[in-house]
Amino acid sequence: MGDLKLVKRFEVTDGFFGRYRELVKDVVLPYQENALNDRIEGAEKSHCIENFRMAAQKLRTGKCDGEFYGMVFQDSDVAKWLEGAAYCLAQNPDPELEKRCDEIIELIGSAQHEDGYLNTYFTVKEPDKRWTNLHEAHELYCAGHMIEAAVAYAECTGKNRLLEIMCGMADHIYRHFIEEGAEGYPGHPEIELALMRLFRCTKEEKYKELALHFINVRGADSAYYEKEKSRNNWTVWGNRTVDTEYNQCTEPVRMQKKAVGHAVRAVYLYTGMADAAMETGDDTLAEACKTLWDNITGSRMYVTGAIGSAYEGEAFTKDHHLPNDTAYAETCAAIGLIFFANKMLYLERDRKYADEMERALYNCVLAGMQLDGTRFFYVNPLEALPGISGEAQTHRHALPVRPKWFACACCPPNVARLLASLSEYAWHILPDRLFCNLFVGGTLDLNDSFGGRIRLETNYPYDNKITYRFEPQGESMSVPLAIRIPAWSDDTVICLNGRPLQYEEVWTGDDREYKYVMEESGYAFLHRDFKADDVLTVELDMSARKVYTCNKVSANTGKAAIQRGPLIYCAEGVDNDGDVLSLSLKKGGAVTVGEYLPDKLYGIQELYADGYRETVSDKLYSYEAPIEEDCQITLIPYYAWGNRGLNQMRVWLPEKR
Amino acid sequence: MGDLKLVKRFEVTDGFFGRYRELVKDVVLPYQENALNDRIEGAEKSHCIENFRMAAQKLRTGKCDGEFYGMVFQDSDVAKWLEGAAYCLAQNPDPELEKRCDEIIELIGSAQHEDGYLNTYFTVKEPDKRWTNLHEAHELYCAGHMIEAAVAYAECTGKNRLLEIMCGMADHIYRHFIEEGAEGYPGHPEIELALMRLFRCTKEEKYKELALHFINVRGADSAYYEKEKSRNNWTVWGNRTVDTEYNQCTEPVRMQKKAVGHAVRAVYLYTGMADAAMETGDDTLAEACKTLWDNITGSRMYVTGAIGSAYEGEAFTKDHHLPNDTAYAETCAAIGLIFFANKMLYLERDRKYADEMERALYNCVLAGMQLDGTRFFYVNPLEALPGISGEAQTHRHALPVRPKWFACACCPPNVARLLASLSEYAWHILPDRLFCNLFVGGTLDLNDSFGGRIRLETNYPYDNKITYRFEPQGESMSVPLAIRIPAWSDDTVICLNGRPLQYEEVWTGDDREYKYVMEESGYAFLHRDFKADDVLTVELDMSARKVYTCNKVSANTGKAAIQRGPLIYCAEGVDNDGDVLSLSLKKGGAVTVGEYLPDKLYGIQELYADGYRETVSDKLYSYEAPIEEDCQITLIPYYAWGNRGLNQMRVWLPEKR
Repeated sequence: MGDLKLVKRFEVTDGFFGRYRELVKDVVLPYQENALNDRIEGAEKSHCIENFRMAAQKLRTGKCDGEFYGMVFQDSDVAKWLEGAAYCLAQNPDPELEKRCDEIIELIGSAQHEDGYLNTYFTVKEPDKRWTNLHEAHELYCAGHMIEAAVAYAECTGKNRLLEIMCGMADHIYRHFIEEGAEGYPGHPEIELALMRLFRCTKEEKYKELALHFINVRGADSAYYEKEKSRNNWTVWGNRTVDTEYNQCTEPVRMQKKAVGHAVRAVYLYTGMADAAMETGDDTLAEACKTLWDNITGSRMYVTGAIGSAYEGEAFTKDHHLPNDTAYAETCAAIGLIFFANKMLYLERDRKYADEMERALYNCVLAGMQLDGTRFFYVNPLEALPGISGEAQTHRHALPVRPKWFACACCPPNVARLLASLSEYAWHILPDRLFCNLFVGGTLDLNDSFGGRIRLETNYPYDNKITYRFEPQGESMSVPLAIRIPAWSDDTVICLNGRPLQYEEVWTGDDREYKYVMEESGYAFLHRDFKADDVLTVELDMSARKVYTCNKVSANTGKAAIQRGPLIYCAEGVDNDGDVLSLSLKKGGAVTVGEYLPDKLYGIQELYADGYRETVSDKLYSYEAPIEEDCQITLIPYYAWGNRGLNQMRVWLPEKR
Repeated sequence: MGDLKLVKRFEVTDGFFGRYRELVKDVVLPYQENALNDRIEGAEKSHCIENFRMAAQKLRTGKCDGEFYGMVFQDSDVAKWLEGAAYCLAQNPDPELEKRCDEIIELIGSAQHEDGYLNTYFTVKEPDKRWTNLHEAHELYCAGHMIEAAVAYAECTGKNRLLEIMCGMADHIYRHFIEEGAEGYPGHPEIELALMRLFRCTKEEKYKELALHFINVRGADSAYYEKEKSRNNWTVWGNRTVDTEYNQCTEPVRMQKKAVGHAVRAVYLYTGMADAAMETGDDTLAEACKTLWDNITGSRMYVTGAIGSAYEGEAFTKDHHLPNDTAYAETCAAIGLIFFANKMLYLERDRKYADEMERALYNCVLAGMQLDGTRFFYVNPLEALPGISGEAQTHRHALPVRPKWFACACCPPNVARLLASLSEYAWHILPDRLFCNLFVGGTLDLNDSFGGRIRLETNYPYDNKITYRFEPQGESMSVPLAIRIPAWSDDTVICLNGRPLQYEEVWTGDDREYKYVMEESGYAFLHRDFKADDVLTVELDMSARKVYTCNKVSANTGKAAIQRGPLIYCAEGVDNDGDVLSLSLKKGGAVTVGEYLPDKLYGIQELYADGYRETVSDKLYSYEAPIEEDCQITLIPYYAWGNRGLNQMRVWLPEKR
């Protein structure tokens, strides 16, 4: 059944994500369980669980009451919730929750056909049309999410029922696409990364083979969806034209150089590719992943780690096109970028992947959920304009306040499963090295590898100090520890028991008591026999900094954003006399860091920037130069925006001398 | 048959629009005639004339070869071209052109049914569906355009054949909607303004009655299109939902306070409303027009006079939403704004209407046509970003270079008919006063009213001096002359025979030799018996000025545009080392006016602004503050952009101290 999963090894306990652990457990997962069961007043209907009930009834009796309701991929909401619940159970034993999960799993099992096939849309609504519409129908996508849930549930609870169900479905897929040679590849990638997880969990080579198959055939025949469409007399979404760019299949994946099309599809695909490249040592696949990563992070990513510039196609558009107010910037896409980054880190140890993973996590993803865990953003714009955002034809998607639920509810459970499994991203344990990628407070169990436990204490991202305490099983624990030093930290101090470690060019292994080496990867490496009283501290340079965009991004010319540590800040109207559009930053002006305010927005530090407030004529156009008065601009972390009603919000502010 | 039309009275001869007169005559109209006849290689097919041939054939023989091709409103392209040709003939007698026009008119006549009905789409393609789909089918719109052509052709050539044809159609419409009481109102307004023209030309009261009918019933039953749709088993554009905002029929027109929906439809409607209000003295209609005008020009108009912020619905969106790179800013909409302004000027003499008319004309409308008259913009963005404009999903409409023709070819002939009829906008002749609204070089024939001719000489907008010379029939001509002084001219000098006129608070009529009064309307008024040698000059303040937007327009915060006289300027890559996104204006810096360059872009004056060029890291995001170096920014008139290949272009530039 594989090794102890990180989510079981590393218990998130205190600090910033300690609150999120509790929130996911106490609020988010129960809220979403209610949503999936249609028990939330005023929220969009889900019908997810009901769809499974109907499918089971139909299999049992040959027919069912009622009709399938929801998106063709509605099953995936249950899958993501179950996956999140599994991670939650790993850290918070809860027999009641586990019982309900087991019941849902039994329900899922009873909706499975004898040949292993599982999909309520097809079982209830289109029983004769299985596998005929890979372009639109999301069968492989739903299977992928349920496989992820199955792997997570098995690894977290030790219970294999869902894993058996989904191995049955995976075997069915294998027979259809490999043994029977069916053509095609999924419209929405996801199965690839899921099959890689299933392979690692079960050690079954054929699941890896199947993942690679879907990766390899993608775009090899770029006309596949056209052919499929011409064969079909049915569609899910009407007579949509096939857009191979939207589906990342204009050419074979190894030839793709630009991240295009639907952003979530893209990064889910790239995640599977990176994982497969790592498992197989396939260099051409790895190179494609690196090229696509560099294209995203070098030209197509918002400063919040969000991706997808356009509502149209929920998609990547063109290099350097990063509008702030009309950004699509889907929460799921930022989550997918984190998946991709995490796999890239395994493929190529370079802090750049962890830096962007952290950027997407602390900014776009956290913004995707209201601070109280009960409302969600699908779209995460970098500017909100009341009266326009959510209202103009061009801004219908870019809501200025979070809704309760969505007809397409992919994002909320995706946030939950990510936050419940941060351990998987925070630490990487390799046989010869322990990597600390993210600074999440908690306790890491290394008893079976490096002989002890490590306790990480921090109030990061509001505290610049990360403390590692060691709890060896015996007298000491020998840990080859590599700690990511974020690229934004100019001046980092690492101390052992209060004494600064000495920086060395090359790790010799000799005389290593008070030495560390800064590796090319951007990780600080030290290897020591840590004793019970040892305290290792990393102090990062968390001064507030202005960020500038290269001069190809039209939306941000003449502007700066403010970052402190991993947090991107924004100005909201409520803190700035209701008007942030009149504000500009003073070039060379100070940005001071406020006190930690435990009662504001669940605990934040504000920043205060020297700036100007412009007074200009109320007339639409005028000839009088604006009058600038000095002012102090109050900034809050971007992830906390939109929690105090309708407000102007801006990440990028003009900067003036 | 009415009075001598302005287009016959005022011959545009020299100066800036002299070139356009020649261009329209020699290039634009012949080019468009070829386009309508499908004789331009590589251009979108028109099939306009062919549709009329087929309709005539079908009426003659009961059937026709081939199929209707083009938009449901394809007929209107012929109408607009004919109208433009009529104006051209008024100033440039051309028997060959007139013969071809007469032939087309005969063709149109032969496509008319015995009951007066005329529309090739319905005759050829949907003979049983007349008047069943006012929402989509543009029957009244096409009729309106052909009525405008008929009025223009009669007034310009004295030939009444097309007028008779269209009176037949108007009578048919009257019978259907008034006598037979058919419900409904046009999806695309146009018939209202056309019927007002037909009324003034023919003095037939019923045409005014019909115009008022369509104005009055609009939005009175806001569910009309829904009802119509539910009755129909056919649609033009598929099962589109009815959007009453798009169609300006959410409420009766007199209650409408915001300019909404499809921008061309809106301003065509408002033009008809303003004209009807003026003719009928209907105060509530006049008030609605003023409110809508103020909403447009106060909150929803680009600095170029363009309107319509969004591709979605080709529409107005929300107050202060004026994105530059994704602007829809349709050429036709700016033309419609000019129509509306011109009627408002008759309704309420205030220079603000003429100022915005001039703004739209010299900037958005002229930009709609390549300087050589052979290519056209439908969309006129205020920022062009090669690699994004015309390419990103969000920018497909915002092309960075002008195409040859369009599947929906409403704009090119609209530009032609406007430019060929500038006289109608430049001067207004009332019994007791002569208004000069625009400064267009040419000769105005007032022999039948004020006893002589006035010759206006200027190279405006490149010359700040406008010279009026008088040619009395007798010894002198008594002219009560009101000259618009543009709001941007801070310091205007008016001289008679070289001697500055003295400004008086109130026009007394006594001792008026060297006096003028600046009226509340913004027009300088003087009344004098002008003699043959009299030379009146108006010298406007045409220093280059920076324009600022009120601080509710997100796209322009911290930015300025440059205006000189009526011209809005822009920076293009080709004049600025290929990169305008790195440029910012220096606050308080000089903007100098270059020499007139007769060989550059058909004659322009460049502006040179003190500015900075920013050097910043090539990385997408960086922490190093940009380095600003002093530079001189070269600016060209906005209307001339996009004439030198693919280029970055910006109207609004960041301004820094």
